[in-house]
Amino acid sequence: MTLPSINARNQFRGKIKEIVFGSVVSEVDIETPAGIVTSVITTRSVKELDLQIGTEVLAFVKATEVSVAKL
Amino acid sequence: MTLPSINARNQFRGKIKEIVFGSVVSEVDIETPAGIVTSVITTRSVKELDLQIGTEVLAFVKATEVSVAKL
Amino acid sequence: MTLPSINARNQFRGKIKEIVFGSVVSEVDIETPAGIVTSVITTRSVKELDLQIGTEVLAFVKATEVSVAKL
Amino acid sequence: MTLPSINARNQFRGKIKEIVFGSVVSEVDIETPAGIVTSVITTRSVKELDLQIGTEVLAFVKATEVSVAKL
Amino acid sequence: MTLPSINARNQFRGKIKEIVFGSVVSEVDIETPAGIVTSVITTRSVKELDLQIGTEVLAFVKATEVSVAKL
Amino acid sequence: MTLPSINARNQFRGKIKEIVFGSVVSEVDIETPAGIVTSVITTRSVKELDLQIGTEVLAFVKATEVSVAKL
Repeated sequence: MTLPSINARNQFRGKIKEIVFGSVVSEVDIETPAGIVTSVITTRSVKELDLQIGTEVLAFVKATEVSVAKL
Repeated sequence: MTLPSINARNQFRGKIKEIVFGSVVSEVDIETPAGIVTSVITTRSVKELDLQIGTEVLAFVKATEVSVAKL
Repeated sequence: MTLPSINARNQFRGKIKEIVFGSVVSEVDIETPAGIVTSVITTRSVKELDLQIGTEVLAFVKATEVSVAKL
Repeated sequence: MTLPSINARNQFRGKIKEIVFGSVVSEVDIETPAGIVTSVITTRSVKELDLQIGTEVLAFVKATEVSVAKL
Repeated sequence: MTLPSINARNQFRGKIKEIVFGSVVSEVDIETPAGIVTSVITTRSVKELDLQIGTEVLAFVKATEVSVAKL
Repeated sequence: MTLPSINARNQFRGKIKEIVFGSVVSEVDIETPAGIVTSVITTRSVKELDLQIGTEVLAFVKATEVSVAKL
């Protein structure tokens, strides 16, 4: 499943596995088929979206933010 | 496999499936277990890294760049 | 109106006023109550979202991407 | 008013309405004609710029950081 | 010299050495004491700021955009 | 010295001069020939990479994250 209305090409669906709360920003760790995806967002957003362990979310990233390393 | 020396928490290994060349930036589409990951990097970097279809690469993203949508 | 399900704190609703197409990325200029908001996204996204002049869209930005200058 | 010397196309002038201090980063909420714009910057910058409630500032964002959702 | 009014902690002063023009974005290469710093900005900004080879500019980056690799 | 396998065009080598720890993100200040470069990364990454004062690191930034101001 994807959010078709968003231009972000890179979308990863999953469930929140862990939240590390800070006073300003929090770390949200999302279990996806691709492995753990980690996001840092404002703690205010975590509360307004009522994100909790187990909440289903979509992590997404703009293509301009993705770096590439050659293996 | 990951690049353990990089701080980016979100790393996706894969093979380049397609490159769309532009005069300044190019789109690099990478086939990963998580699905297609799309990166926009400078065309100069594509050439300097000698990226081609089939090249094994690691796409990575800083946690501060990852957005979250509630489903 | 906002997309309440997205964590991005900064959301600007508007209508597309102009699109400058490039081979890889395109510039989308959006007329909002806040003035013109300019976004650069992949041309692939412009096509997949079928964005055109007049399309109603929401521009949004992560708080970590916003810089501040003192006046 | 804008800062003409900066390439960031998206500039929002306003007054600081609230600051949430953290040990490393702080959230700065800016009241603009476009509504509240939220920025997360280092707490060190908040102090060096002497940002306080009521300080006039310009929030700005690179066009490559702006995402688009279709409504 | 720095722009003291900007929160970006990482500022590099220099002269433009090369500009690669694209229809939407352009690459601006800046010669600084730190070496060449490369920026991709909208071609519209290049024109509005009247950037040319030899123009003195300040390249700056938010601390949240800087990645770290261990050597 | 650079990491040739990374597409980030802007790489600054140096030694960590100071770390400001937060519960979620930390500020890492790196002494480079270009001056102090400041990075904000997750505290988890600081620990996993075992970054300490004096550790040799490479700070790097995507060209799309670099803003330009005219002097």
